[in-house]
Amino acid sequence: MIILGIDPGFGIVGYGVLTSVNGVASPLGHGAITTDASMPLPARLEVIYRDMHTLIDHFKPDAAAVEELFFQHNQTTVIAVAEARGVILLALREKGVPIYEYTPMQVKMAVTGYGKATKKQMQEMTRLRLRLPEIPKPDDAADALAIALTLNGASPLGRRPL
Amino acid sequence: MIILGIDPGFGIVGYGVLTSVNGVASPLGHGAITTDASMPLPARLEVIYRDMHTLIDHFKPDAAAVEELFFQHNQTTVIAVAEARGVILLALREKGVPIYEYTPMQVKMAVTGYGKATKKQMQEMTRLRLRLPEIPKPDDAADALAIALTLNGASPLGRRPL
Repeated sequence: MIILGIDPGFGIVGYGVLTSVNGVASPLGHGAITTDASMPLPARLEVIYRDMHTLIDHFKPDAAAVEELFFQHNQTTVIAVAEARGVILLALREKGVPIYEYTPMQVKMAVTGYGKATKKQMQEMTRLRLRLPEIPKPDDAADALAIALTLNGASPLGRRPL
Repeated sequence: MIILGIDPGFGIVGYGVLTSVNGVASPLGHGAITTDASMPLPARLEVIYRDMHTLIDHFKPDAAAVEELFFQHNQTTVIAVAEARGVILLALREKGVPIYEYTPMQVKMAVTGYGKATKKQMQEMTRLRLRLPEIPKPDDAADALAIALTLNGASPLGRRPL
């Protein structure tokens, strides 16, 4: 089973891809879709949408795990991130990829066993669990791998796609 | 010039279409894209995206006016509305329609001259300005016509597409 994890954003969309064999995850790839801050938002949404299609065509995931959004920090940013998340969900839906959502707390619990783990602890546990030589870069890709690990570790009974 | 006004939502996307000749607006059509509450959000986003394409192909607008989102009421709803707004902007961008954004306050000012106009006052002024026999239904379509009127009434110098 191939799992695509997505950390939504409009400047940087982190992605991380795992293969899961009998529940044991191995890294397949990770990186980020980036958009230029000088471009207007609709043009950035179009880049994200097209790159998501390219990513899905390349890795052919059996399932996707996408982080849920919450209200925190800058409110204007959250709206633009949600707009980007909309086109990410659209691309996954059009390609027939089942979508699972996880809160940041669920991802922390799944990866470290501790809901208040620091970013550094999360990144180190993600690296260890995937037997990677170094912490994946950029941070958004490391986050996306952690989100993918969350779906991998979820009980099959507890899995409910959107 | 044909102007498409959009009131974003994920359950109901209101739309209103005007022709503008020498700044005088006449109604071309209005209505709503609706999605079934029993469907998961990604499926609803796909319906909105496809119906937006159909709408644009049908009316061939020269410009679109889309309401900006703000934080108010239920926070969970605002995130889903922003996700829907993302696919709306994507469809407009893909069809090459220039996009203008207006805040609810700007729409009220443009249509009634009063930034704290009530919903009822807004609807009645929209009806009068478009010489419609009745207030357009549903409310979301009336709102969308008011948003389209805002672009129509904007000074050409003050117009800046996204």
